[in-house]
Amino acid sequence: MLLLIPGPVTTDARVKAAMAQDYAPWDNDFRQTYRQVCDGVLRVAQASPDEHAALALPGCGHFAVEAAIRTFVPQGGRLLAPSTGAYAARLQKLAGDAGRIAVPLAVGPAERVNPLAVAAALEQDPTLTHLALVYSETGSGICHDVPELARIAHALGRRIIVDAVSAFGALPLDLRGLPAVDAVVLTANKCLEGLPGAAFVVARRDSLEAARGNAGSWSLDLADIYQHTLQPNAGPRFTPPAPTLAALAVALDLYHEEGREARLARYTANMRALYDGIGALGLTPYLPPALQGPIVVNVLAPDAPTWNLQLFVDALKRRGYVLSNFYNTEQPTFRVGCIGAFGPDRMRLAVDAMGAALGDIGISRESAASGGFFPLPLTA
Amino acid sequence: MLLLIPGPVTTDARVKAAMAQDYAPWDNDFRQTYRQVCDGVLRVAQASPDEHAALALPGCGHFAVEAAIRTFVPQGGRLLAPSTGAYAARLQKLAGDAGRIAVPLAVGPAERVNPLAVAAALEQDPTLTHLALVYSETGSGICHDVPELARIAHALGRRIIVDAVSAFGALPLDLRGLPAVDAVVLTANKCLEGLPGAAFVVARRDSLEAARGNAGSWSLDLADIYQHTLQPNAGPRFTPPAPTLAALAVALDLYHEEGREARLARYTANMRALYDGIGALGLTPYLPPALQGPIVVNVLAPDAPTWNLQLFVDALKRRGYVLSNFYNTEQPTFRVGCIGAFGPDRMRLAVDAMGAALGDIGISRESAASGGFFPLPLTA
Repeated sequence: MLLLIPGPVTTDARVKAAMAQDYAPWDNDFRQTYRQVCDGVLRVAQASPDEHAALALPGCGHFAVEAAIRTFVPQGGRLLAPSTGAYAARLQKLAGDAGRIAVPLAVGPAERVNPLAVAAALEQDPTLTHLALVYSETGSGICHDVPELARIAHALGRRIIVDAVSAFGALPLDLRGLPAVDAVVLTANKCLEGLPGAAFVVARRDSLEAARGNAGSWSLDLADIYQHTLQPNAGPRFTPPAPTLAALAVALDLYHEEGREARLARYTANMRALYDGIGALGLTPYLPPALQGPIVVNVLAPDAPTWNLQLFVDALKRRGYVLSNFYNTEQPTFRVGCIGAFGPDRMRLAVDAMGAALGDIGISRESAASGGFFPLPLTA
Repeated sequence: MLLLIPGPVTTDARVKAAMAQDYAPWDNDFRQTYRQVCDGVLRVAQASPDEHAALALPGCGHFAVEAAIRTFVPQGGRLLAPSTGAYAARLQKLAGDAGRIAVPLAVGPAERVNPLAVAAALEQDPTLTHLALVYSETGSGICHDVPELARIAHALGRRIIVDAVSAFGALPLDLRGLPAVDAVVLTANKCLEGLPGAAFVVARRDSLEAARGNAGSWSLDLADIYQHTLQPNAGPRFTPPAPTLAALAVALDLYHEEGREARLARYTANMRALYDGIGALGLTPYLPPALQGPIVVNVLAPDAPTWNLQLFVDALKRRGYVLSNFYNTEQPTFRVGCIGAFGPDRMRLAVDAMGAALGDIGISRESAASGGFFPLPLTA
């Protein structure tokens, strides 16, 4: 069964094998695994161990996004949060429920965040201390230019929080060159090809020191987790998802063997095999090629009378491929992940299976294409 | 390797095997696993599905304790929190950092929570809307009489939050008879004999409806998780630790096969084998027999010149048994868990290994006993 949902991803058998063990989280052997994982995450971010720390948080990516906002934006503080799609909307709600004010910036559904619009919004409102960005927006498939936007915010004296959950390990990130980035949020189960249950924040040590007392939540206080890491022979603060971390240690070894550029190239090849393949099936991608990122492809649902997402998902699953069974965009689209421990040959087989699954629910190449929704209008 | 740390626990091989798979968390098959786990947890709590819901939260027990306090005690609200030990202290800090006021009630280190003192404290301060209790206090090994204390608080018109993390599934709990209990917090990796990464709160449906808007944290808002469960074909709200939940489904099957009373009897037999065994080694338990609970035994560190907790832990680990390598009590004690997928025969072997490990670090039966710390003074 290949997961294309797009994350949790399909993992290597060696990664999964590390899950099937009982670990003692504060045992000295596990402390070493724990530090190895944090060091590995730091290395993926091209962060300097002197300037940055990788902090592990049990749970999911949303928890780590909330933790980053709580820790670095004080209660009542304001952050600019471009509305890039479903995951930006979640970031805005996480901030708002935590008593921070997320000021939205309109972004079209098929647009990259406009650097000029960000600069203008920050210039107009000096109370916006932070810019919060989703690097790869699963809600569209677009990857936004986080390094460029971070440089603009930095030039205007602002700090940056990056939700890199879907992007981390594949898209370029060199924290040494981005000193205004306070926090980068990631999880084990996306491009690092680990399993779900563990989130991380890579954060600046000086910012973590300055942020003590901000969080208003012990569970989600990154400054407290950081202080804990400074203790001699530090282990996890609270009970960690130990098997998930041990599996991530294996996944990080595989990651560093492959290298970021090779991993991105593999995902890009997966995306191209999928993007071209669905076109040949008569389906229409949500995004034009120039905007399509390498992580997730959203595909417009055919406007055929027999179309039914759950039936399509079921038919595809009988063939060994798992898609999400819900919509994530305003126009109905199904989303297909290009990430995980597999390559373009397998993606081509997945496309073949999609064609057969469409046939199962009575949709031909012609009915997939004719009457299909038009792609979104693109801005000039 | 047998984990005696006391939790995460040693799990059955069938439970671990379920960890080593890739799961799609919103796939219909997994939705069924998810509901099965929540239903199984509800059944362990002897809760009524009409009146209660079991809500899953990714992460650790502390997150779920904070979530329960945030959800049921409004910002600025006050709760009485008897100071039973290290885990009660953590509950107090979780509440305080979240802007709730945890009013401590002094409890001696070798005392059960006194029902009269709780009643007096609640009567004296009508602003205390809640009583928060740790059922099995890992910091001592004492199990407090949660059903009795809950009835007293109920009679005084107060609501109850129970940290049952170490107790759930072993100690008696019949929520049908405890209508004033708003929330019971548990995790997968203690007496349910699952793996770490998933926490749960069993809560009243009417209380969850009334608590909307309290939490001040989307991540930790149980009322929001509850509203999500009311959707048709509901799955997890955020990405769950899917392998941990799938493993818990297996663990719950094993649990229901064994039954709560048999499981408690097994743990009690483990505790007795340990308690009697360490006495025969010359070591002194932290608690007298009448106060010793069945979950964890704290053992006073010998006052011998060669005693060193880490060396003892290392020597024991070479023999296949893992203990915690830190102290959890004011007097130095090492703690030994009696929970997990093993019985008293194996605990007797663990005691033999402890004797040998003491020998390895130069501590004889005589030096373990002579000059050992005296047990705590006991109240009448």
